Amino acid sequence: MSRRTEYLEAAADRVMIQDMLARYAWEIDHGTPEGFAAVFSEDGIFEVVALKLRVEGSQDIIAFAKDLQRTMPNLHHVMSNFVINISGDRASGRCELNEFMALPDAIYPNVQGWYEDEYVFDGERWRIQHRRNFFAPSAAGAVGPLAEYSAAFMEACAKYQHA
Amino acid sequence: MSRRTEYLEAAADRVMIQDMLARYAWEIDHGTPEGFAAVFSEDGIFEVVALKLRVEGSQDIIAFAKDLQRTMPNLHHVMSNFVINISGDRASGRCELNEFMALPDAIYPNVQGWYEDEYVFDGERWRIQHRRNFFAPSAAGAVGPLAEYSAAFMEACAKYQHA
Amino acid sequence: MSRRTEYLEAAADRVMIQDMLARYAWEIDHGTPEGFAAVFSEDGIFEVVALKLRVEGSQDIIAFAKDLQRTMPNLHHVMSNFVINISGDRASGRCELNEFMALPDAIYPNVQGWYEDEYVFDGERWRIQHRRNFFAPSAAGAVGPLAEYSAAFMEACAKYQHA
Repeated sequence: MSRRTEYLEAAADRVMIQDMLARYAWEIDHGTPEGFAAVFSEDGIFEVVALKLRVEGSQDIIAFAKDLQRTMPNLHHVMSNFVINISGDRASGRCELNEFMALPDAIYPNVQGWYEDEYVFDGERWRIQHRRNFFAPSAAGAVGPLAEYSAAFMEACAKYQHA
Repeated sequence: MSRRTEYLEAAADRVMIQDMLARYAWEIDHGTPEGFAAVFSEDGIFEVVALKLRVEGSQDIIAFAKDLQRTMPNLHHVMSNFVINISGDRASGRCELNEFMALPDAIYPNVQGWYEDEYVFDGERWRIQHRRNFFAPSAAGAVGPLAEYSAAFMEACAKYQHA
Repeated sequence: MSRRTEYLEAAADRVMIQDMLARYAWEIDHGTPEGFAAVFSEDGIFEVVALKLRVEGSQDIIAFAKDLQRTMPNLHHVMSNFVINISGDRASGRCELNEFMALPDAIYPNVQGWYEDEYVFDGERWRIQHRRNFFAPSAAGAVGPLAEYSAAFMEACAKYQHA
């Protein structure tokens, strides 16, 4: 494979991984828990490092997405600044995350952080093998007027937390 | 056309559609009403569903862009999470929308919503055939300190509204 | 080179330039001054037009990045709406910029502006040759509760300012 072809293919892989990550945001913000889980591989892992939260496998990812959509509605996950490294049918990547929550009185920036990911291509499409969510140091969890909206989510998280 | 070629072409189409959507944001945020209308096809349609606003064809899109730029200056349209499906020289897509308004005292997130689109390739470039803007349930229109800034826009919208 | 090949290559170049710009954000938000400077060409230039700030060459870009990271920690540079024009191994581009600062009490949108850029491909990867940062008219610099956090940055900027 020529160097030029490699360049085109690596660029195309980056596009398709970002398309998949966009589906991740759409499913959790406006879609279904099942659609959200389908963005991960069957044995996919989702972690929120600051909360010691770890969810593994489609069934648990579906349960977690239900809890998140129930306790934190009206979220927008704005992902930006995608850095992706391709290695055949595997890839690693990271992107910054800015979450916004639309409440009746205003729209609040409620999380500032980033994701560190592993992806896998299954012959048809890219999926998330492992996604880890990190919070910025001074924005770990909800702050100010958002704290009360996070209480139910934090409670729901307990069952996914590990020491 | 081989499967690999299809993959490269569909990725390239996604890139060029996003490039065109970036021009959409630049024209409305910093450019001209005519430049904004040129991102749409001649018979393009722009709708804001929650406001029952519908604008059709280049002349009306130019008029609408003039009204928006006059009544709501200093907006930033941040589009993210692009999900695009290609079908030859047509495509459909959606992206999330977070708008920010720079006022003298602070920068406010003033809209949380999304777009649902139809695109068409005219042999040279992609254009918007139909764009529908949706607001998040709890952020339909301006809220809090932004309400007064929206009054003139809402008034200007009357001539584009349909029952 | 066929028209179709040109289309694929120009799309791939846009992807790789955006990948490089993502590294720009990561380096300044979470990385190192040296990593930040490496996104620019050796004789690269960074300007903040409203502040008459101009930094040229790797050594000065490293010094500036150190000052920025020391005086304005916990920033997120959200770039969106990338419009890029390719011309062989050179390109020009622009993107909108929304900065967010995570403080202990809340996450603040602290800058609304845009970048205008020149890029160069060195045979291996794209780099920034010249980046100019512009602020939106009503958001030039820090406002409201952010002003005190900007004081140290503004002081550090003095040595990069030109009449």
